[in-house]
This record gives sequence, C-alpha cells and structure tokens, in this order.
Amino acid sequence: MFRKILIANRGEIALRVIRACREMGIESVAVHSTADADAMHVRMADEAICIGPPPGTDSYLSMSAILSACEITGAEAIHPGYGFLSENAAFVQAVEDHGIKFIGPSAEHIRMMGDKITAKETALRLGIPCVPGSAGGVADVDAARAIGEEFGYPVIVKATAGGGGRGMKLAKSADEIEVAFKSARTEAKAAFGNEEVYIEKYLGTPRHIEVQVFGDGKGRAVHLGERDCSLQRRHQKVFEEAPGPSITPELRDHIGMICANAVAEMKYEGAGTIEFLYENGEFFFIEMNTRLQVEHPVTEAIMGVDLVREQIRVAAGEELSFHQEDLQVQGHAIEVRINAEKLPNFSPCPGTISQYHAPGGLGVRMDSALYDGYRIPPYYDSLIAKLIVHGRDRPEALARLNRALGELIVDGIDTTVPLFHNLLQAEAVQTGDYTIHWLEKWLDENLS
Amino acid sequence: MFRKILIANRGEIALRVIRACREMGIESVAVHSTADADAMHVRMADEAICIGPPPGTDSYLSMSAILSACEITGAEAIHPGYGFLSENAAFVQAVEDHGIKFIGPSAEHIRMMGDKITAKETALRLGIPCVPGSAGGVADVDAARAIGEEFGYPVIVKATAGGGGRGMKLAKSADEIEVAFKSARTEAKAAFGNEEVYIEKYLGTPRHIEVQVFGDGKGRAVHLGERDCSLQRRHQKVFEEAPGPSITPELRDHIGMICANAVAEMKYEGAGTIEFLYENGEFFFIEMNTRLQVEHPVTEAIMGVDLVREQIRVAAGEELSFHQEDLQVQGHAIEVRINAEKLPNFSPCPGTISQYHAPGGLGVRMDSALYDGYRIPPYYDSLIAKLIVHGRDRPEALARLNRALGELIVDGIDTTVPLFHNLLQAEAVQTGDYTIHWLEKWLDENLS
Repeated sequence: MFRKILIANRGEIALRVIRACREMGIESVAVHSTADADAMHVRMADEAICIGPPPGTDSYLSMSAILSACEITGAEAIHPGYGFLSENAAFVQAVEDHGIKFIGPSAEHIRMMGDKITAKETALRLGIPCVPGSAGGVADVDAARAIGEEFGYPVIVKATAGGGGRGMKLAKSADEIEVAFKSARTEAKAAFGNEEVYIEKYLGTPRHIEVQVFGDGKGRAVHLGERDCSLQRRHQKVFEEAPGPSITPELRDHIGMICANAVAEMKYEGAGTIEFLYENGEFFFIEMNTRLQVEHPVTEAIMGVDLVREQIRVAAGEELSFHQEDLQVQGHAIEVRINAEKLPNFSPCPGTISQYHAPGGLGVRMDSALYDGYRIPPYYDSLIAKLIVHGRDRPEALARLNRALGELIVDGIDTTVPLFHNLLQAEAVQTGDYTIHWLEKWLDENLS
Repeated sequence: MFRKILIANRGEIALRVIRACREMGIESVAVHSTADADAMHVRMADEAICIGPPPGTDSYLSMSAILSACEITGAEAIHPGYGFLSENAAFVQAVEDHGIKFIGPSAEHIRMMGDKITAKETALRLGIPCVPGSAGGVADVDAARAIGEEFGYPVIVKATAGGGGRGMKLAKSADEIEVAFKSARTEAKAAFGNEEVYIEKYLGTPRHIEVQVFGDGKGRAVHLGERDCSLQRRHQKVFEEAPGPSITPELRDHIGMICANAVAEMKYEGAGTIEFLYENGEFFFIEMNTRLQVEHPVTEAIMGVDLVREQIRVAAGEELSFHQEDLQVQGHAIEVRINAEKLPNFSPCPGTISQYHAPGGLGVRMDSALYDGYRIPPYYDSLIAKLIVHGRDRPEALARLNRALGELIVDGIDTTVPLFHNLLQAEAVQTGDYTIHWLEKWLDENLS
C-alpha cells in the first residue's frame, strides 16, 4: 500500500480523499494555490505545499508544479479528484513517466473516452447502447427520409461541425424531414462554413441516468447501480439520487451488466461512470467519465462502500473488495450541491462564512470544506458543500433532506440552499417524475 | 398519526426526537428549564415552553409541569427520551389518564421491569437466561456449599439487603466458600442490620451485551441484534459498538429470538433493551430498559432503521415497519459519548463552547446539541454529543472513528475526546477483546 498520496485538487473533494487516506493510514499531501492557503484541505492534510497563484492554470492545472510537489514530498501516488487534471491523458502519462502512480484509469482509457467519436465507437464495439443515427453525414433529403423511416420519428438533424444548438433542427414526423434537413444544412453552412449534417433519433423526455462502474485493471469489473441526475441547470447537475426513481431492478441489472462487462473487457482500472439518456425503458450512451463523480456519495450510501478507498486499493494493485453479488441497493440516497451562488441568476457569490453549522443525526452526510470564518476565494468552481441523505426509501430520504436543509447554517454568503427548500415543494421532485428539461422550465416559472 | 408531540427531555436526545418528528411531518414541542432557554432543542422545535427552573426536579422531572405544557400546546403524545421520566410508571399512568399517548411501553411493563426482583422473575418465566443462584437466602454453610457444587465455582455471596459492593464476597473454589459465606453475613449484618445472604454464580470476565427489541404492543416483536457496551467507567458506558465483537451470527439469532419471543409474549410496545452479562458463550440477564437507549444509533446504523420513527409509528397504532427477516447486520458501527468532563478525574466541566465544528464525510453521524457560543449549564448530565461511525467492518469503523475524532472541534471546555484518541491506541480496543472490567483498569494505568 502507498505510504503517501498527493491530492491534486482542492475543496470538498480534496477533503474527501484526505479522509480516505487517513482512514487507511496513508499520509496525505495537499497542494494549494496562494488563494487557498487557509483552505480546509490544507488544514486537514498531513502536509501541504503551495503550487502557485490562482487561477487554476498556474497551480491546480500546472502539471509541472504538481509533479514537483510530488518530488519534494515523496508522494508515491496522485489522486486527481474530479475536474482540473482528472481526465487529462497527458498528465496521467507525465505522472506515470515520473514513476508516480496515478489513481485512476490509464492514459489510453482516458484518451479513448475523452474524444466523443472514439468514445461512441468504443461504446458500440463493447455493446453499450447508443443513440441510433446516420453513420456519418447524410447526403440528401431522400437519405434523410430513409433514416427517419428506419429509426422512427422524431429525429434531429445536426451539423457535423456544429455545437451550441446551431444547425440543429427537429423533425417530428415524415412531413417535417425535408424542411428540417434543408434548413439545418443552410444554417450549418452559414454558421460553420460546412453544410454537412447527420441525423439522430430525438429523445423528447429523457432522464440522465448514469451507471457507476469499477474495474480492477485486470479484467474484473462490477457495476454499482445507477444514479438519476436529471435535475440540471445549464448541463450542471444540482440534485442527484440513487437508485433512479424510474429504474426497476431488472433494468438496473440489464444496463449495469452491460456496463460492467464493457469495462471488464477494456481492462479499465478504478472508478468510472457511464452516462446515458434514458427514455421509455431504453438507454442511450452519452459519454464515460473516467474519474470519481461529484455525486459518488449517493452510490456509497446505497451500496455501503467507500469508493475512494477502493480507488486507492485498486491503484495499489489490490483486488476489488466487493463482488457483484455483494452490491445490493439499500434504501435511497439524495445529494444536493450547495453552491456559493446568488439566486435567481446563480451568479457566483464568494465571500466570508460568518457562521457554519452542519446538520446532524441519522442518515445525514455532509461533505464540505466550510468552516467558521472561511473566506471563499473567487477563482474556483462555486460548489462549496454537498449534503447527502440516506433513508429506507425515497419518501424518507426526501423528508430527511428537507429536515437536514432546515438545520444547515451557512451565513455570510448567498447559497443555493433556498433553491432546494423550494424544489422540495415541487410535485415532480416529490414523485420523481422529471426529465432533464424539467428543472430549467421550473426555474423559469418559479425563480424569475 | 399524531399531529403534535411534546418531547419531555433536553439535549441531544430531544434533538433526536425533534428530527424524527420533522421528517414525519409532525409538529414538535420542546419543554425547557430556565437554564435551557438558549438550548438547541428549544431552537429546533416548532414550539417551546418553559416548565420551570433547574434542577431537574423542578422542570424536566415535574410531571405536572409537563402535563400542563401538553395541555397548553395541544400535544397529543409525549416522547420521554431517556433518563428523566422515561421509566417512571407513575408518570406514564398520569399521562395516559390525561388522554395523552405515552410513546413507550405501558406503565405495567415499566413497573414490571423497574423492580429487580419482579424483573428477574419475569425474565425467568419468559425463558430469558439469568445468572444461576440460590432461590432466596442461604441458611448455612452446608447450603452454601451445595449451591457452589451445583453451579460450579467461582460463586459470589451477596447481602440480600445489600448494594454498593458491601456484603459481597467471592469464593473461587470450595475451599473458600465457608470463609466467604461467614464474612459476607458478618458484613451484611454490620452494614444493613440483616445478615441474610444469597449466592450467585460469579462471572470473572463478562462482557456487557444488550439486545435491542421492538414490540408492536399486540404480540408481534423483533430483535435488532446486540450492542457490546462493555467499555464502562463507574457503570457508565463510554464506547458502544454493534455487532458485538464476540457474538457470532448463531449466538445473535439464539439470544435475539429468546428476547423477541419474550417481548412478544409480554405484548410489549415500542423499543426496549434487554441487558446481559456475557461470558463463554452464555448470556445472563441483568435488566431490561423500557425506553430508547443512548446508544441506539449503532443499531440504527447496522440495521438501516430509524428507531425513533418506529417508536412514534407504533405508539400511533401502526404496524411494525420491519420484519425479523429484513433485519440483517450491515457492517459495523461504534458510538463514543462525548462528555463535558475534565480528565483524568472526569469532573463535570460546563462552560461556553467557543468553537464547534462537526466531523463530516462517509459513515459519520453526529448527534449533538452543541453550537458556537452555546453555554452548557451545570445542572444536567455531562453528555453533550455522540459521535457514531459506520464502516463495512470493525477495522474500517475504528479507522473512521479515529479520523472523525481528529476533525471534531469542541473548544472552550474540556471533553472526553482526548480519552477516545488514547483509547483507540489500546490493543484491547483494536482487537475488541475486552470485558466490563477492562476500561477501569486501563484508566488507572493510563490516565492517572
């Protein structure tokens, strides 16, 4: 086992890893920017080393600074957390070239999943279901019509060179395909100088369902069920739960085993998440995140495992400590992301915490880097804490979340806590009947 | 279900009940002494009502004040917590006579278990194993010798009228019985004016094992496994864990079913704990606590249930929400009692909390009535917080406890936290190989 691990991150996730290290008897090294000298992860680690000024590029994203910190402190492994360098294949390569163990998958796997096209090709090859669509560009209206017939309407026409919604046109039926195809091409040409378009089946009311996987790097892998992260604002998750309210045990087994088999075949090492859109009993691959997710605690709650401990164990060459048959869903867990943001516009709201009081009692977990008097620097992501609750079932978890939010005190700055108080009143949240579009609409109606 | 519940207690246990009420959508009424006006339970409840000055006899133990508070607030039920009036049969009777529901067993069951002799008789009748001994007083040395032969040595001779260790003599073998019998009688006569003595089998290295039971009051009951609470100082538990390190699944089923059947036959209602001394695979009844225990959270952790919620449900006439077969041990949990006491003498140490920071992260539960600036009054029990950890196994739970203790900040007063830091270094705690005598001896050797 490692003697010392450097955590190439900050905030609550750095704390999360430090806690796992401490419980495993491993020394922890925090790195920090000059803006983070008073941060909780610096206080809690066994050692701390300054790696440069803000913003991230000069410190938390500086490969050379982090490698130097390893050298100076004698850390044998690096845990990247999420964000920053956690999915940077070049960094992983550099780390390994320096004889330091990267706690996570290989550079090759990160690269494979980092590129959308390669990722989808890999997914298809490994039997992971993808959104049906044209294999490449679609030449003319007749070809478009044929694809519409093949996959069924609605379909969406997208610019090959596109992004940000431009060059995207929906065709709800065969009547609309000609207009959609032609206008998408025109718009694509105008926007990107390239009129090529492709066509995919359109999902009108999808959920975001993601499957947690874990591989030992030698061909053994398990899945740890799914999380429903459909409640998103501008593609940022704000409320995550496990198990998914819409997922039956049969669906869980079905998609879970597909994912577990895929990562086993890849000889994937460590924690990963395969993200899907889900609609009417079908899953459609979005991407794979080759790292720990922000929302990993809901899985830890329902599965009774410590994913960070397991990451470290596997990185050190140990066997997986759980088998597929050990992993049974126990109750229901929900996480809310508490951001230093001012409603209704979610504008970042750094500042000084004048009072912090964490909720307690049964089924409540707080992953937070806050303390009384902490000054939140303005340079980083606005996530400051995660509140995770666990109950015997979904209603109990919701009631517990409501109760715990009522106990939480974060004074001195604005946070997203009031959002969750309101959100818990919404019927769709109470019933679990929401799609990835629901929150944006609800915010428009309720917060503006 | 009840609309409003009054909590006839203070401190962390009042908070515990308020939390359950909030999660169930039930209004909570806190009662408080004038010394507790700023207490957390007062802040957290929906309503609060002052019931008199300290000490307890004038407020938390005043039946009339509490009944008046019920009348004024319209509370339909009373949760007594632990201590204070929780095992007072007269109080239960008075509560019920006022048409208010007492959340707990009947006055009859409390009375039955409140008296040592009736309790033991009841236990024997219900098939609960008791310490073998003479049926009543032992007349002479020959009778004493016969009993020694029957139960095997060592035996202990005790004054019938005794207490506090006076009139108690140990006979390790037949050679010692005559001296022990005679000197016990002499001492009994001198101390209590009554020379009658009785004889029991002596347990040299017992553990304190207690079984959590739960009855619906109509003849259905379950057990929720055991807790090992052997680490005690002056009969006060300081460190409790579940499952017991020495208890096999077979032993758990065996003693658990005896207890569940006994409370089913009693038609016992609500939560209860049957306490045993345990030695060499055998259990010997000590007493039954007819209320929630301080250490109930370790059972909640390993069983995934909410015992307070269940108490309230059953009091409202609902069915038990779990069956025996649902109750499977999940991992290992440990609780430490954080007292406002100064080591090495454990002298009470009330005062003002200048800084409070609760530990967080995976598997950590904090049940505490502390907050920044809270002034601990000098009138009550010194328990100010309970830290409960849950892990996949005992080593993980121990490591997590160590980690969480390191994060906890309670500044401004002395607490028992340093004791636990030291205790975790002890081999007997690491291995789980301790008896009820171990801690006192360790304290003598390490803290004086």
